[in-house]
Amino acid sequence: MSKPYVVGIDIGGTNTVFGIVDARGNVLASNSIKTAKHSAIEDYIDELYVELTRLIQTNGVVDKIHGIGIGAPNANYFTGMIDDCVNLPWPTPIPLADLVSEKFGIPVTITNDANAAAIGEMTYGVARGLRDFIMITLGTGVGSGIVINGQLVYGHDGFAGELGHVIMKRNNGRMCGCGRTGCLEAYCSATGVARTAREFLEIRTEPSLLRNIPLAEITSKDVYDAAVGGDKLAKDIFDYTGNILGEAFADFITFSSPEAIILFGGLAKSGELLLNPIKNSLDKNILSVFKGKTKILLSELKESDAAVLGASALGWEAKI
Amino acid sequence: MSKPYVVGIDIGGTNTVFGIVDARGNVLASNSIKTAKHSAIEDYIDELYVELTRLIQTNGVVDKIHGIGIGAPNANYFTGMIDDCVNLPWPTPIPLADLVSEKFGIPVTITNDANAAAIGEMTYGVARGLRDFIMITLGTGVGSGIVINGQLVYGHDGFAGELGHVIMKRNNGRMCGCGRTGCLEAYCSATGVARTAREFLEIRTEPSLLRNIPLAEITSKDVYDAAVGGDKLAKDIFDYTGNILGEAFADFITFSSPEAIILFGGLAKSGELLLNPIKNSLDKNILSVFKGKTKILLSELKESDAAVLGASALGWEAKI
Repeated sequence: MSKPYVVGIDIGGTNTVFGIVDARGNVLASNSIKTAKHSAIEDYIDELYVELTRLIQTNGVVDKIHGIGIGAPNANYFTGMIDDCVNLPWPTPIPLADLVSEKFGIPVTITNDANAAAIGEMTYGVARGLRDFIMITLGTGVGSGIVINGQLVYGHDGFAGELGHVIMKRNNGRMCGCGRTGCLEAYCSATGVARTAREFLEIRTEPSLLRNIPLAEITSKDVYDAAVGGDKLAKDIFDYTGNILGEAFADFITFSSPEAIILFGGLAKSGELLLNPIKNSLDKNILSVFKGKTKILLSELKESDAAVLGASALGWEAKI
Repeated sequence: MSKPYVVGIDIGGTNTVFGIVDARGNVLASNSIKTAKHSAIEDYIDELYVELTRLIQTNGVVDKIHGIGIGAPNANYFTGMIDDCVNLPWPTPIPLADLVSEKFGIPVTITNDANAAAIGEMTYGVARGLRDFIMITLGTGVGSGIVINGQLVYGHDGFAGELGHVIMKRNNGRMCGCGRTGCLEAYCSATGVARTAREFLEIRTEPSLLRNIPLAEITSKDVYDAAVGGDKLAKDIFDYTGNILGEAFADFITFSSPEAIILFGGLAKSGELLLNPIKNSLDKNILSVFKGKTKILLSELKESDAAVLGASALGWEAKI
């Protein structure tokens, strides 16, 4: 193969991580820049060009890059555009694939960050060999990448897989950043867990380690630490969160009957604290024909690796 | 082509309809038998053999049948089995594909009735040319056939697409035949509409044409007739039903972002009475990125044709 490497770029709200990857999924080298440093997208791409070119030259792979794959919030696989995004500092729409491809003279394919993570997990992680699975990213928001028949589901417009925005509470649901109420994301993201903590602390009167932290500053990490420390209220917050996730997963399974649902992202690091209530809730809520069939797994990839590797796998698809 | 015909068989709770179909989807001839006449599956298949063989001989296509496709409740594409089914008179599990294939000496492929209808719609109906759509069958129950990237979604176990059993009411939901509560099917099937009618008539006091019918005997057809006759309460029942369907469709769209959702089955014949509240509700409940993108369509196929044609299309896949 004359061009045996690909580049994966993961554009997050804070950092942009990029790496050079070979056909076996080995990351030769990687580096990162700050995403929000430049208010003009052109300046951002200029810095990305300088840093990535340096990485490519240092590693002796000039003219050996088959393609560039990018995972970014709201990025559309079909159009190469970011149409609308609250988590990035630049005005939208952004013709991201074209901008990067023109700068580097290398073909570029883009998709959203959760899809990139799903591709990474399928290619290099716990989803290897699975043809039907759902990746759920539990971070600041709740994202998803759905794989059916071994293919990522993009839908007719490239925006499929917004499972953070199925409605879990149809009456008096929490406000969601999407402008609606009751979305899964409003309850089961890292910020959703912090909101639950504030609600529980206000409504309930029992003592809790969390009462040592100013209400407005509580994070999901604080809840995790308290739960690990044996705090009953903090554990109840994980039970509440896992219960809703289990209800949601029971619905997802009626749709695509996946072999596994894979959890990824900051909150997934809570491990059994979250997994146990999810499994209990799923078991209680699942349609009998699916009972006990779908595994709930934790991603085995480091967060940054999954996104960069997933994005890089897209680089093999890239065509001029 | 030495064997230029296929046979499609639609096994319903009441009737079994079968037909001989050519590669262009023309039904050469069709006939039917009563499904529940025989309490032993072997006797049923004997009668099917006699009647279908007669049809094949009469039409001069002996030795010209490439394969047989069957649509039946709970039929599993992967295993060829019906594991469990309340709507058929025979003990389960039934190795349906093997039984029919051994009897006829012709390869057989089976799938559930909603999937067969989706294949029929994709091959011969309003879904021609669509690569991403969801077929929703509104009959005695609520079924679904999901097509993504031009392929039917079977899931890892062959049972994907049970969208009648997503949960629409998480608190105090109606009992569903599946043993759980709050399922879409409990509200939006023909029987669900009749249940809504009984609830409305008991709770509300206004006059209604439906009050002329004994409460226990009201059907969705009665509600339709009353609504067409201008009955306010009957129209409210359709609004209530359509509102829940619109909420459900908004969730389905976050999953696979289909180009269209296609309604099929008895209740779909209600036309605008049901379509308008669905569209209003969908518009109100949809995530903004999907707004106005997914068409809600009515099937263009006759109910029996869609199932037989869809099942017959599976016949082309059949291999020994």
